[in-house]
Amino acid sequence: MQTTYQNQQWFYVKRPDGRVGNEHYELRKTELDGNLSANEVILRARIVSVDPYIRIQQHERNTYDVPHPLGIVQRAGVVGEVVASASPLFQAGDWVSAYSGWQLYARCHQSELTKLDPGAAPVSTALGVLGMPGRTAWFGLTEAGRPRPGDTLLVSGAAGAVGSLVAQFGKRAGCRVIGIAGGPEKCKFLTETLKLDGAVDYRAHTTPAALRAAIQAATGGVDIYFDNVGGPITDAVIPLIKRRARIIICGAISQYDGGLDTPDLGPRFLQHMLFQRATIQGILARDFAHRMDEMLAIVAPWVKSGEIVFQETYVDGFEQLPEALNSLFEGKNTGKLLVRV
Amino acid sequence: MQTTYQNQQWFYVKRPDGRVGNEHYELRKTELDGNLSANEVILRARIVSVDPYIRIQQHERNTYDVPHPLGIVQRAGVVGEVVASASPLFQAGDWVSAYSGWQLYARCHQSELTKLDPGAAPVSTALGVLGMPGRTAWFGLTEAGRPRPGDTLLVSGAAGAVGSLVAQFGKRAGCRVIGIAGGPEKCKFLTETLKLDGAVDYRAHTTPAALRAAIQAATGGVDIYFDNVGGPITDAVIPLIKRRARIIICGAISQYDGGLDTPDLGPRFLQHMLFQRATIQGILARDFAHRMDEMLAIVAPWVKSGEIVFQETYVDGFEQLPEALNSLFEGKNTGKLLVRV
Repeated sequence: MQTTYQNQQWFYVKRPDGRVGNEHYELRKTELDGNLSANEVILRARIVSVDPYIRIQQHERNTYDVPHPLGIVQRAGVVGEVVASASPLFQAGDWVSAYSGWQLYARCHQSELTKLDPGAAPVSTALGVLGMPGRTAWFGLTEAGRPRPGDTLLVSGAAGAVGSLVAQFGKRAGCRVIGIAGGPEKCKFLTETLKLDGAVDYRAHTTPAALRAAIQAATGGVDIYFDNVGGPITDAVIPLIKRRARIIICGAISQYDGGLDTPDLGPRFLQHMLFQRATIQGILARDFAHRMDEMLAIVAPWVKSGEIVFQETYVDGFEQLPEALNSLFEGKNTGKLLVRV
Repeated sequence: MQTTYQNQQWFYVKRPDGRVGNEHYELRKTELDGNLSANEVILRARIVSVDPYIRIQQHERNTYDVPHPLGIVQRAGVVGEVVASASPLFQAGDWVSAYSGWQLYARCHQSELTKLDPGAAPVSTALGVLGMPGRTAWFGLTEAGRPRPGDTLLVSGAAGAVGSLVAQFGKRAGCRVIGIAGGPEKCKFLTETLKLDGAVDYRAHTTPAALRAAIQAATGGVDIYFDNVGGPITDAVIPLIKRRARIIICGAISQYDGGLDTPDLGPRFLQHMLFQRATIQGILARDFAHRMDEMLAIVAPWVKSGEIVFQETYVDGFEQLPEALNSLFEGKNTGKLLVRV
């Protein structure tokens, strides 16, 4: 039996200088040959992840990796259904996660797939709280942040996919947790839904001095700063660190639209590291990939019992993918941003 | 018997905005009453230390400590002789180190003094390789730097009191060591006297790009960066760090002339921490004061056997103290700067 699948694929074809958009991609309608070799399956994507790291990898240099090549399907995490299988491990109808990118259909080797149990947790959590963002939040906070009960934990990008989890993990570790986010709605989410101890709306403070004063007032000094954004927000935080503070650099989303290639200027601050004998540590999700089971053993039961809020923002339509990626840098999402396809 | 000592004292009377000089001090001729209570001694200073940290403490705020008060004798480490004693632990003629500041004579409690053995090492080493700078270099490198054989260690301010020791300790740890210093003479000292693997004369490279290229050429990438200077040199280094690099912030001498109160601007760089999963750690000598014996047990034998170069630059004359302090910021000293009084 010869089967082909009417596929749609977003090819990454041009490096952005600033904001990313449709002009850096090409939507191609192709046919996927459905003939399977042993241990292969056909995956139909249902939920596609857009993450800030995608924009980092679009830089030609200065990043943590070989740049994302031009002329191939945009890489990304995906949750989908197996629609055909020549693997003993999977059968049609199975839900799986994979790294098959921005395409409706993909032929995958069984080793590329992780089977999901829709009864244990919504399958979308494999791209969020029980996936890469959850792992980043968990190990970034626990390993690099070393939270102690009573510590003041400040999280930038606190309404985002990683930040909202860091904040909640911090509460469970006994920290006083303050979140920074943009706009009153997100701040309300932080204090009312996530039950944080405080929130700072960075958009409400238009000068560096005002922002710093607001963070000072909300925190009274910072033991742990979990940074997802960099730039002027981080400038405002660093003078407020306390003795032996831990600063975790998880992201610098404010710098991704060109600031990685041509860094802009900010106030020098390394003297504060000296005065406070503080540490800065950069972390990446991949460094903890081999320890995923440790995180899941603790966090999956919390998700199952409803103790962790994992907010998701959905965009509908495969054709929306580049625009959804761009919207991350406008701060439009609360929690994990996902595209239903 | 009533004895008085004709004393000279440098009082710190005015906070500098930029460079420090005579105008921030007053030289006072006073008399010191020589009557001793039990366990007290009279100390005659012979060698007075000038150190970059003195300038940090002159800032009104933003530092690691209560600012140095105005209107008192400038605090500093000193090596001198006991000239009179009512202590069972010390007798006239003993060499000691103390923190008695910029004055010829001081009445000290015995608990303030550390006895020195002039037969074991030159007494001046208590202010250098076997004192605070040695401790800073030793623990900063071994604890925060975690050197491995084969690592490339880059030291800024490498011809200075701390830097020249870090460089030599790094060589003994099996590192490839490159030093940064100002001027051909200091660079010659690094490669010919300290036998480092390379030296970069930062004054020979007048643009940030040229400096960065020179450091790249000399190092091929940096595993450990021991930073004494901050500012543009550090800007040039950070993009060159390798995977899991350790950056030790020991000083920021380029920023002490005002840049601590009103930070100047430099390129943002925290994304490199992320890409390389690197760490920055600020260290202070005081945090290792209780572990001085560990350092001495290892380093004192090296000093005694002549295996460690501890260069000293001497200025003669008590009246030269403020100018000597200022000269640190002009980079005039090689190794430890000391004033003979």
